[in-house]
Amino acid sequence: MSDPLAASAPLGVFDSGLGGLTVVRELRRRFPAQSILYLGDTARVPYGTRSPATVTQYALACADVLVRRHVKALVVACGTVSSVALDTLAREFSLPIVGVITPSARAALAQAGERPIGILGTAGTIASDAYPQALRALGARQPVFTQAAPLLVPLVEEGWLDGEVPRLAARRYLAPLIDAGARVLVLGCTHYPLLRHVLQSEANALSGDHIALVESSSAVANEVAALLQPADRESDPLVRGELELLVTDLPNAFAAMATRFLGEVPGEVHALDLASSRR
Amino acid sequence: MSDPLAASAPLGVFDSGLGGLTVVRELRRRFPAQSILYLGDTARVPYGTRSPATVTQYALACADVLVRRHVKALVVACGTVSSVALDTLAREFSLPIVGVITPSARAALAQAGERPIGILGTAGTIASDAYPQALRALGARQPVFTQAAPLLVPLVEEGWLDGEVPRLAARRYLAPLIDAGARVLVLGCTHYPLLRHVLQSEANALSGDHIALVESSSAVANEVAALLQPADRESDPLVRGELELLVTDLPNAFAAMATRFLGEVPGEVHALDLASSRR
Repeated sequence: MSDPLAASAPLGVFDSGLGGLTVVRELRRRFPAQSILYLGDTARVPYGTRSPATVTQYALACADVLVRRHVKALVVACGTVSSVALDTLAREFSLPIVGVITPSARAALAQAGERPIGILGTAGTIASDAYPQALRALGARQPVFTQAAPLLVPLVEEGWLDGEVPRLAARRYLAPLIDAGARVLVLGCTHYPLLRHVLQSEANALSGDHIALVESSSAVANEVAALLQPADRESDPLVRGELELLVTDLPNAFAAMATRFLGEVPGEVHALDLASSRR
Repeated sequence: MSDPLAASAPLGVFDSGLGGLTVVRELRRRFPAQSILYLGDTARVPYGTRSPATVTQYALACADVLVRRHVKALVVACGTVSSVALDTLAREFSLPIVGVITPSARAALAQAGERPIGILGTAGTIASDAYPQALRALGARQPVFTQAAPLLVPLVEEGWLDGEVPRLAARRYLAPLIDAGARVLVLGCTHYPLLRHVLQSEANALSGDHIALVESSSAVANEVAALLQPADRESDPLVRGELELLVTDLPNAFAAMATRFLGEVPGEVHALDLASSRR
């Protein structure tokens, strides 16, 4: 590759909806000079309840939009896509692609030592077995327990981030992991950090212990760092790269929610015609 | 039309996912001889959180699949599609089309008399104002209160039909309607009858009264009856029309849930390639 990671090109980041903004937030904190083009597929969210074939089809369409806009690399800020479609994306596109699974698994293993690890993810992520496989590939020998949590993404997209409903849903999904002995939990979906407070307090209450929660955002940012030119790793917060947000549906609703995920007020959110995202 | 409602042709019924099966159940009970072709767009469920333009695009694709298979009429067993896309469907297709809004509004008005009416629906249905407009068109003079309930469809699709989480979610959505004075509630989404028990007990508890719940299924069946030939209205339960189920994703998961909605064990559920549903 001659100069695929040219300093001027944006990083492409995509997710099924809002969740990937938790990764964007960390990338913006770490690499403020780096411009980012984000795509949220809000016309087809959630991905986590769909089949691998359907998720792969949707992911190819999202990646295609970003590649046509000349991003320097793709960050797949979606646990479900990272679990089932990363190999297909790597075959179809020749630019660097960073998913969330291996970086998160590495971070979890570093925190867990030999303690059991629990994985909370979408139905698609859990069915794929991607996290246990990644952990074993990294040399994990401890038990790994998994739990699908399909209702957490709708809760986040609805904005119910505290109160009894998310608390009871979190408890129901966490209990089998904690009961099995997990003391380090991977938040295996980029939506879940928005429920971090609820997940942390329920996990602690269920275990009577402090449970370590592992998010993908900082682990992904470390992997992205290795791809960037020095100018893009510029950490002077006065040098601000652009952030462009694209969605496939409901840009105004997305903009209204985005601040909570991003930690900054986004500029205009642009709607992308679904038809143009078809390969 | 020469003979559009030929006795041999199936009725076409579609919904975003599982919810429309509550309508199929009633149609099968009322018209056992009538064969039915059902399409659930499980690759893109839920519809209720999306924009009118996106819902209309999806609805046209679903209708197109059924029309190409020569259904005699279309039953739009989805509150969101009925709210935002019925006129477009009627313009695009020349067969009879039955939605859920007007039949449900008529049933609600018959039950309510002059009492206030509350509408529970998806974000899309509520934003469209379709129920209040239909009620006014039918001559309703009482106050009509509406409440979007985006989490109820994910709860049903996840199979959480009782217990604390649906109870608290139901309470949160019902309280504004009950507090405003509604004593008749329209379940303005075909998924909601699966939560009927929870919705009924919470509505009664909140009001200290008996709240009448109106489902669309029997109201829709009345409207369908007017379209059918005598042979199709045959009520001998020994004469069973075929029921063919199509989905755009995850046929096995759909089949596993379908019995609870249908009240009978379905035959094989067939997956439809999404590409073939594109207009």
